[in-house]
Amino acid sequence: MLGCGVVGTEVARVLTTDAEELGRRVGAPVELVGIAVRRIERTRDLDLDPNLFTTDAQALVARGDLDVVIEVIGGIEPARELILSALANGASVVTANKALLAEAGSELYAAAEAAERDLYYEAAVAGAIPIVRPLRESLAGDRVTRVLGIVNGTTNYILDAMTTTGASFDDALEDAQRLGYAEADPTADVEGFDAAAKAAILSGLAFHTSMTLNDVHCEGISNVTAADVRSAAEMGSVVKLLAICEADQERGTVSARVHPVMIPNTHPLASVRGAFNAVCIESEAAGQLMFYGQGAGGAPTASAVLGDVVTVARHRLNGVFGPKETSHADLTPIPIGEARTRYHVSLDVDDRPGVLAAVANAFANHGVSIKTVRQEGRGSDAQLVVVTHEASDADLAATVADIRSQDMVRGVSSVMRVEGVA
Amino acid sequence: MLGCGVVGTEVARVLTTDAEELGRRVGAPVELVGIAVRRIERTRDLDLDPNLFTTDAQALVARGDLDVVIEVIGGIEPARELILSALANGASVVTANKALLAEAGSELYAAAEAAERDLYYEAAVAGAIPIVRPLRESLAGDRVTRVLGIVNGTTNYILDAMTTTGASFDDALEDAQRLGYAEADPTADVEGFDAAAKAAILSGLAFHTSMTLNDVHCEGISNVTAADVRSAAEMGSVVKLLAICEADQERGTVSARVHPVMIPNTHPLASVRGAFNAVCIESEAAGQLMFYGQGAGGAPTASAVLGDVVTVARHRLNGVFGPKETSHADLTPIPIGEARTRYHVSLDVDDRPGVLAAVANAFANHGVSIKTVRQEGRGSDAQLVVVTHEASDADLAATVADIRSQDMVRGVSSVMRVEGVA
Repeated sequence: MLGCGVVGTEVARVLTTDAEELGRRVGAPVELVGIAVRRIERTRDLDLDPNLFTTDAQALVARGDLDVVIEVIGGIEPARELILSALANGASVVTANKALLAEAGSELYAAAEAAERDLYYEAAVAGAIPIVRPLRESLAGDRVTRVLGIVNGTTNYILDAMTTTGASFDDALEDAQRLGYAEADPTADVEGFDAAAKAAILSGLAFHTSMTLNDVHCEGISNVTAADVRSAAEMGSVVKLLAICEADQERGTVSARVHPVMIPNTHPLASVRGAFNAVCIESEAAGQLMFYGQGAGGAPTASAVLGDVVTVARHRLNGVFGPKETSHADLTPIPIGEARTRYHVSLDVDDRPGVLAAVANAFANHGVSIKTVRQEGRGSDAQLVVVTHEASDADLAATVADIRSQDMVRGVSSVMRVEGVA
Repeated sequence: MLGCGVVGTEVARVLTTDAEELGRRVGAPVELVGIAVRRIERTRDLDLDPNLFTTDAQALVARGDLDVVIEVIGGIEPARELILSALANGASVVTANKALLAEAGSELYAAAEAAERDLYYEAAVAGAIPIVRPLRESLAGDRVTRVLGIVNGTTNYILDAMTTTGASFDDALEDAQRLGYAEADPTADVEGFDAAAKAAILSGLAFHTSMTLNDVHCEGISNVTAADVRSAAEMGSVVKLLAICEADQERGTVSARVHPVMIPNTHPLASVRGAFNAVCIESEAAGQLMFYGQGAGGAPTASAVLGDVVTVARHRLNGVFGPKETSHADLTPIPIGEARTRYHVSLDVDDRPGVLAAVANAFANHGVSIKTVRQEGRGSDAQLVVVTHEASDADLAATVADIRSQDMVRGVSSVMRVEGVA
């Protein structure tokens, strides 16, 4: 095992205390033979032989007698080099490293295939929730059309708190930090980078296409206001940060993006509370599937890692390996401007005749069709709330720029995408 | 393929129209070479070479050149003999046949292992929802403690209609039959037999134990009344038919049962509407997971069948096979009397002093601890509604028998188990 943090500690605990049962499931004894860490002297809540620990990760993976290497260091280097070395030295690899897979997945999958070893990574997306295996295997005879996921617990916790209490983003973030749901530096979570890495992995799996973090458009939740959350509630919706992966088989394109959306309360993802994760998969034959559970934390992530360890160990025992990565569909990632969805736009306007016509004209000029408009407030509080039919992101952006320049519009207070509407 | 009904037709359609894509996913061409049916002349919504059809199923499975046999006939015979023959003749088998697996699973798994072929059956439980693979593989490094499932769409549709409209069971069933959600003879669904077969399969997988239909206690929903549904609503709960599989590792026992329960509205299973299915898995490390989707219908079931076909075909191509069935834990199924849960009991009582004491005494005498009691109505409409703490089913049954014999109790109008309460 490489790394022994929160997840690694749980993995090591089960590998030692439950080795007998794991061995029965694999069909051969399971033994943890080494753990590479940065600092051996760190106190760990584990009753392990101290001789298992080493600071020389490279020597550990190069032993040559390892069946499975578990990588739970995280980050790009040295994780990448160590995984490549483990594969080259004949071990299969189980990793929870979403950032690495989203950056260098193709290189690692190719190395695993060349080495005739497994590279498994169920824990990299949505923690304990089985999602990689269902996409890779259960749905292998179907065509996935869309994946919508709440794949970051921190942002879901913050948005849920804003929905429940009416708090501002800053206050909800502070609470989340105090309660341990957000890190001291919350950037990777609240700016959507963590979710974007998972969107790259999910879209690659779902659509048999090689995807990297660069192919994923990413917006976080730091600009979501209490007013946005209230607006959503007035529409019978909630604000969620979603990873969205959509394929258009006819055009041969895929759109992968992470941004806040309004989704109706009746959508299965709307009721995902707190730090829980959930992923909806829509496919041609199976229809809508949803997978729900704990997306992070030591024990849940360890469950996913150990499920992979058992599978990979069974393969080693039988001299075989699991399904290879497939990128045969080779769809083209499209920029956010070409993505199509619906929009909820709030405008501060002058409360006088002609304002609605002017605004409606701006939408029409850019080919964006309006579904509903309502005016809220009067006089200096007057607001127009516009919900559109499906339009391209570029057309919507041009519309908003146009509206901003109009005399009667004092400001565009919120633009949010709307998902999950039939 | 054996059988060409609703599911078979969808499987055949995808196998022919999407053969190229399936072949890319498998890594070799996929060809449908024969379909055994009872009546060749039946009209089918399929554009297939008529020469593919045969009435001689036995000759088809004995060809000797088949890689995969898909069994979608259903029922015990001839499905059982045909599957055994297919395995003996060198084919792997994909089946959707829950009744057969719940009756003769051990025999079939042993035959598959002896033949070094796969026996896959994702479609047998909860249709399109991946549940067999997650239990068999994703959670192979964890310890499942409990499985709660809505695994029969017909009964969920009927109970949901009763909840939404206040209808009686008979009226809701009639509506379900008219709309095609229930069959003309609804016995297998409404009496819980279909769900019980799935409970046998789920508990076997979850707890590494050989389970048959005889090990599953089964009660249907035909005795659920509009009053039960109203009582549940008053408690902030809904009535659902659940398959419940629980292991007690210390005692070495497993309880598998199907019966109506009240579950709180806050439980993820409470919001499963209409004919949808959902399965909650609770495990030591992963915590609570839920899987949700369409549990029946041609296309969704075909999706699960074809996912298995791709997996099994990949295995054939690589000369390997998937994880074997495990029954090493060999837990002992317990009768319903030993199962422990909470209960909701409604009594018609005389509205006079002493009645509560008498009822409370009856519970106490059988060691059943009361959580709440409330009186509803006055005079001749007086009712006592008792909710208990956890107790054994046998103790609860003895308590109820005792109460029935009391002078002040005019009748026991409802006894229902309560699940999903922390």
